[in-house]
Amino acid sequence: MKIKSNNINNIEKYFLELQDSICSIINKTESKLFKVDDWKKSSESKLSGSGRTRIIENGSLIERGGVNYSHVFGDKLPPTATSQRPELVGRSFEALGISLVFHPKNPYIPTVHMNIRYFIAHASSKYESDIWWFGGGMDLTPYYIFEEDAKHFHFTCKEALDPFSKKYYPDFKKKCDEYFYIKHRMETRGIGGIFFDDFSDLGFDKSFSMIRAVGNSFSKAYFPIVDLRKNTHFGDRERNFQFYRRSRYVEFNLVYDRGTIFGLQSGGRIESILMSMPPRVSWIYNYSPEKGSKEEKLYEFLKPIDWLKV
Amino acid sequence: MKIKSNNINNIEKYFLELQDSICSIINKTESKLFKVDDWKKSSESKLSGSGRTRIIENGSLIERGGVNYSHVFGDKLPPTATSQRPELVGRSFEALGISLVFHPKNPYIPTVHMNIRYFIAHASSKYESDIWWFGGGMDLTPYYIFEEDAKHFHFTCKEALDPFSKKYYPDFKKKCDEYFYIKHRMETRGIGGIFFDDFSDLGFDKSFSMIRAVGNSFSKAYFPIVDLRKNTHFGDRERNFQFYRRSRYVEFNLVYDRGTIFGLQSGGRIESILMSMPPRVSWIYNYSPEKGSKEEKLYEFLKPIDWLKV
Repeated sequence: MKIKSNNINNIEKYFLELQDSICSIINKTESKLFKVDDWKKSSESKLSGSGRTRIIENGSLIERGGVNYSHVFGDKLPPTATSQRPELVGRSFEALGISLVFHPKNPYIPTVHMNIRYFIAHASSKYESDIWWFGGGMDLTPYYIFEEDAKHFHFTCKEALDPFSKKYYPDFKKKCDEYFYIKHRMETRGIGGIFFDDFSDLGFDKSFSMIRAVGNSFSKAYFPIVDLRKNTHFGDRERNFQFYRRSRYVEFNLVYDRGTIFGLQSGGRIESILMSMPPRVSWIYNYSPEKGSKEEKLYEFLKPIDWLKV
Repeated sequence: MKIKSNNINNIEKYFLELQDSICSIINKTESKLFKVDDWKKSSESKLSGSGRTRIIENGSLIERGGVNYSHVFGDKLPPTATSQRPELVGRSFEALGISLVFHPKNPYIPTVHMNIRYFIAHASSKYESDIWWFGGGMDLTPYYIFEEDAKHFHFTCKEALDPFSKKYYPDFKKKCDEYFYIKHRMETRGIGGIFFDDFSDLGFDKSFSMIRAVGNSFSKAYFPIVDLRKNTHFGDRERNFQFYRRSRYVEFNLVYDRGTIFGLQSGGRIESILMSMPPRVSWIYNYSPEKGSKEEKLYEFLKPIDWLKV
C-alpha cells in the first residue's frame, strides 16, 4: 500500500507553519532576525532533498540556535532511523522533520531542543507495504535549576499528550530520560521532557493530531521560561559554567544522538545537522562544582525525576 | 604462550620515562607546571587499572594539554581495539599506553597528538596463545599553514622509521591520512603524520625498538615548531579562527576516534580520555574563510599531501 501524497503535503504544510510561528515568537524578544537558508541536495548525493534552515547567531537573546525544516529521500534507511524495526533497515525512505535547538546567551535560560518527524520506509516489492511512523519530543537542558521551570515544562508536555492517552506522558517521559542519557558521565543531558519514536499507534489522522499537539505546545512550554529568566543578571561565573556544561551537550550529540548520527551517516546537510552544536564551549579537566554552590545544585537533578510530584 | 611479564615492565618503564622527559621539555618554556593526577580504577568497574595523568590548563604556552600514561585490564576486548583481528574481540585484555595532546594558546602553533600503546589479548584457553601488538603514531593539526613546519614534522617521522624499514613511513603516513579523516566534512583532521596498529611484524624486541624510536622522535618533530612560532603575534582574528577549527577536532574525536570510543565503551577514566578535548571551542554556521585570506590557505592542505616532495 502506498502512502497518500496528501498526507505528506499536510505534514509539510504544518511543519512550515510551525517553523514560521516559532521564529516569529522569538523575534518578538530577539533583536536579530533569523538568517534564512533554503537548500537543496541533488539526487547525485546519497541523500537528496531540500530544507529551510532558520538560524540566529550572536543574537541578543539567542547566542546560537535554529529551526530547521527538511524533507529528504534516501536509498537505504540506516539503523539509527528506527529502533524497533530492524527489518526495515536498508529500504529506501523518505523523511520530513522539523528540528530546533536554542542556546540562549543568558545562562539562566535553559537550552531547549524540539523535534518532530515523519518517516516512510518504502515497500521494496509489491508484496510489501510502505511503513510510516512519527517520532519526536522536546527536552530542556538548564544550567541553573529552577524547579518551577522544570515542572512547568513537564506539565505542558503532559497537557499536550493527555487528550490522546493518559499513558503517553509517563511513557514518553521515561523514554526521554533513557534516551538523553550520557552514559560515560552517568548523567542525564538535562531535566528531560518527552521522547517517542516508531509511533503509529493511533492511525494516521489521530497520530498526526498528536504530533500537532506536541508541536503546538512547544511555545507554551518554553517561552514563559525565557520571559521569566531573560533579565536575570549574570557574569563571568555563570558564563563559564554555561560554557563548561555545554560540552556535555556536544558529548551527547556527537556520541549518542541518533538524529545527529543518522544525519552524518546518511550524508545529510552537515551545517543543518550540526546547528545543534553550541556557540562557545569549553572542556575543563576534572571539574567539580564548589560544595553548596548554585552550580552544584544542578547535579542533583541530572537523573530521572518525577517532576509532576516535586 | 604467556607474554613475559618482563616485557610489560620494560614498556611501562619506557612509557613513564618518556612522559617525564616530554613534560620536562614543555616546562622549559611553559610557566605553568603540569598538574599531577595519579589514579586507580578498582576491579569492580568494567575496566581496572591505574594511570598517571599530567595536565596543564590555562598555561602561558599550552591552553590545555596533557600527557597520560595508563595501564588497564579489561574483561572483554571491544571491537575498536583491533581493526584487523575481529577474532580477538571478546577476549580479556591488558593495555599500556601513553597518549598526549597539546592545544597551544597561540594559534600559530599547531595542536599535536601522539600515542603509543601495547595491547595483549589474553588466551582464553590452553589451546590459544596470548596475542600482542603495538599501535600508535603522531599527527599535527595546524590552524595556519607553514609548509616548512609540515615538512619538518613528516621528515622527522620518516627518519625515526627508516632504520626499521623504508616501507614503514609511506605505509604509516597513508594510514594516518586515512584514519584522521573527517568523513562528513571531507577533510583530513590536519596535515597528518604517521599511524599504525596491530603491529608485531618485527617480533617483540625490534617492534619495541621501533616504538621507542617513534616515542623519542616526538620532541624533535614538535618542539622546534613550537619554538619557531611561539612569539608570532596573534589577535582576536586568529583566536576566533582557532576556536572555530578546534570544533573539527571535537567532531573527529567524538565521532570517529577509535581510542576515544574505545575508552568510552570500555568504561575507562573519562577525564583522562577527554583530556584530548580543546579548552575553548566554537561552532559557527556555514563558515567559509575569506577568499585569498591566510585562513583560506589552510583548506588547501586538508587532504593527503606528499610532504616530502612539496
